[in-house]
Amino acid sequence: MSSETAFISALRRLATDPAARGLADDAAVLELGGTRLVLTHDMVVEGVHFLADDPPGDVAWKLLAVNLSDLAAKGARPLGALMGYSLRGDAGWDRAFLAGLEEALAAFSLPLLGGDTVSVPATAPRALGLTAIGTSAGRVPSRSGAKAGQTLWVSGTIGDAGAGLRILRDGQPGAEALVRRYRRPSPRLSAGGRLAPLVGAMMDVSDGLLIDAGRMADASGVAILIDLARMPLSSELVEYGGSGRAARLVAATAGDDYELLFSAPFAAAQEIFALAKELGLSLLPIGRVEDGSGLSLRDGEDLVPRPESLGWEHR
Amino acid sequence: MSSETAFISALRRLATDPAARGLADDAAVLELGGTRLVLTHDMVVEGVHFLADDPPGDVAWKLLAVNLSDLAAKGARPLGALMGYSLRGDAGWDRAFLAGLEEALAAFSLPLLGGDTVSVPATAPRALGLTAIGTSAGRVPSRSGAKAGQTLWVSGTIGDAGAGLRILRDGQPGAEALVRRYRRPSPRLSAGGRLAPLVGAMMDVSDGLLIDAGRMADASGVAILIDLARMPLSSELVEYGGSGRAARLVAATAGDDYELLFSAPFAAAQEIFALAKELGLSLLPIGRVEDGSGLSLRDGEDLVPRPESLGWEHR
Repeated sequence: MSSETAFISALRRLATDPAARGLADDAAVLELGGTRLVLTHDMVVEGVHFLADDPPGDVAWKLLAVNLSDLAAKGARPLGALMGYSLRGDAGWDRAFLAGLEEALAAFSLPLLGGDTVSVPATAPRALGLTAIGTSAGRVPSRSGAKAGQTLWVSGTIGDAGAGLRILRDGQPGAEALVRRYRRPSPRLSAGGRLAPLVGAMMDVSDGLLIDAGRMADASGVAILIDLARMPLSSELVEYGGSGRAARLVAATAGDDYELLFSAPFAAAQEIFALAKELGLSLLPIGRVEDGSGLSLRDGEDLVPRPESLGWEHR
Repeated sequence: MSSETAFISALRRLATDPAARGLADDAAVLELGGTRLVLTHDMVVEGVHFLADDPPGDVAWKLLAVNLSDLAAKGARPLGALMGYSLRGDAGWDRAFLAGLEEALAAFSLPLLGGDTVSVPATAPRALGLTAIGTSAGRVPSRSGAKAGQTLWVSGTIGDAGAGLRILRDGQPGAEALVRRYRRPSPRLSAGGRLAPLVGAMMDVSDGLLIDAGRMADASGVAILIDLARMPLSSELVEYGGSGRAARLVAATAGDDYELLFSAPFAAAQEIFALAKELGLSLLPIGRVEDGSGLSLRDGEDLVPRPESLGWEHR
C-alpha cells in the first residue's frame, strides 16, 4: 500500500460522521433543517492537474470546474466557493489568474465567499484549493446506488481532455477543441440537477471512465459491464486518434473528462433521452449493472480484457 | 502596494455577494432557509504559521483551531470541516499529523467531512488548508458593529503565543505554557456563542491585538482607544518578559493569540462578567470605542505613540 493510500485509509477512519459518506463519494452531504448541504474541496496542483505553462486563466477555470463537477454529480445547485491561493511572487501570473477567475465565476454564476491567500517560495509548485458549497432540495445520489438490472449512462464524450493533455505535453498535432476540453472542463450542473431524481448511482468521471466505473461497482456492491463500442467519442477525437479498440481504451482510461456517469432503471430511459434533447447534451447508455462484482469490458460482441491501468490511481 | 495587497484587493472586487462580507470579516455568512451558515477557509504554511520542527500533531491542532477561532468570533457552532492536505513523502510526519488530527477532532467535537490529498515535492513548504462550516441560529456579529460609547473587551490573555514563538525560534528559555499557547491555540467557541447576542463588533485576535483592533476601528468607522495597562497578561508571560510598557507593546503586537476582541454597550458589562465567571475564562475591558477614526493607545494616564508595526500585515 502506498503512503498516499495509507494516508487516505487513515483519514477514512477519522471521518465517521454519516455526512462524510466515508470519504468515498464526490462530496459530503449534510442534512441541515430541511435542506441538504453538499460540500466538496478539491485542489489543483501544477504538474498533476495542470501544466506549468497552461494559461493562468484556464487554471482558474479548472479549479472552479472540477469542484462544480462534484456538485453536479450530486445534483446540487452551487451556493458559493472559498479559495485557498498561494502567491509565488509572480504578479503577472496572478493577474491573469484573477481575470480567468472573474470569467469563470460569472460563467458559473458562482459567488466567491471567502478564502485565504498565503505566500510560498517561487520554487514550490502551485497548489490551489477550492471549497464549493451547494444545496439540494431533493435526493442526493451517491456512488453506491447502482442496482443489478439498471443501465449505465454517460454524458458528453469521453477521452477528449486526455487527448488534449497529450497534444500539449508531447507537442503532438491535434484539434484546439481537445486542448480546450483539457483546460476548460464543463461541469454538467444542469444535467446533474435534472438527473438526480432519476438515477440509481451518479458520480463524475475525473480519473478515467474505467477506474471511476470500477469505483461505482465497488461502492454499490455490483458488477458493471461497459461496451467500448457504445462509448461516445467526439469527431475531433476520432480524427485525432481514430475509433478503433486501442483508441477507445486510451480514451476510457484518460482522466479529466468531468462528465457524469450514472445508472438508471430501464423505465427512466425515455425521460433521460428527452432531457438530453432539451439540454443539447448527449446522454447515452454505455453498459449495464449486473449481480456480482468488478468491472468488465466488451467491444460489441467481443469480450475485452481489462487494461492494466484503468486510469489515475492517486490524485 | 505589495503584490499580495493588490491581489487581495482584486479578489475583493470579485466577491460582491453580501455573504462574502467584502472579504473583510473573519468568515462568510450565508442565509439559508431560516438558518445562517458561517464559512471560513484558512491555510497554515510552514515557516509562516508554524515552524518546520513543530510536532506534526500540533500542526494539525493549529489548522483546526485557527479556523474554529473564526467561527467562534462569529458566535457559530461548528458543523464540520474539509481539509486540503499535501503529502511530501514523509510517512512518519503524516502519521503523527493524523494522530494529532484525531485528537483535535475529538477535542472540538468536529466531524471531518471531506477534502483532498495531493502529492507535492519534498522541497515544497508544507501548506495545509481547512474549510470550517458552522451555523448560527441568531445574530452573526461582524467586525463593523462597534459604536462610539461602547467598551472594548478581550478574552483570555494576550502575548503568550508570541512569547512561545520567540522561545522556540530564538532558543530563549521560557515556560512550556507559552510554547503550548503558540502550538495549541484554544478557539473560544463557547464564549463566542454566548457573547454573539451581546456584542457590537466581534473578531478574533490572530495577527496582533493592535493591528486587529485597528481593523475593527476601520471596519466600523470609529476610533478605538486601548489602555495597555488593562491588557491581561498571564503570570507565565510576566515572568518571561516582565509587565512594563515595552513588554506590553511586544505582547500587543505579537500574533497567534486566537482570543476574542469585542465591543459591547455598558449595559452588557454585568452579563459579560457573569459569563466570564461561568465559563472560567477571563473577559476584561481594555479600552473604548469613540467617535473618530483609527487606533490610539495609552498606558494608564499616559498617551503612548503607536508602534511602527501593529502586528502581522500579510498572512
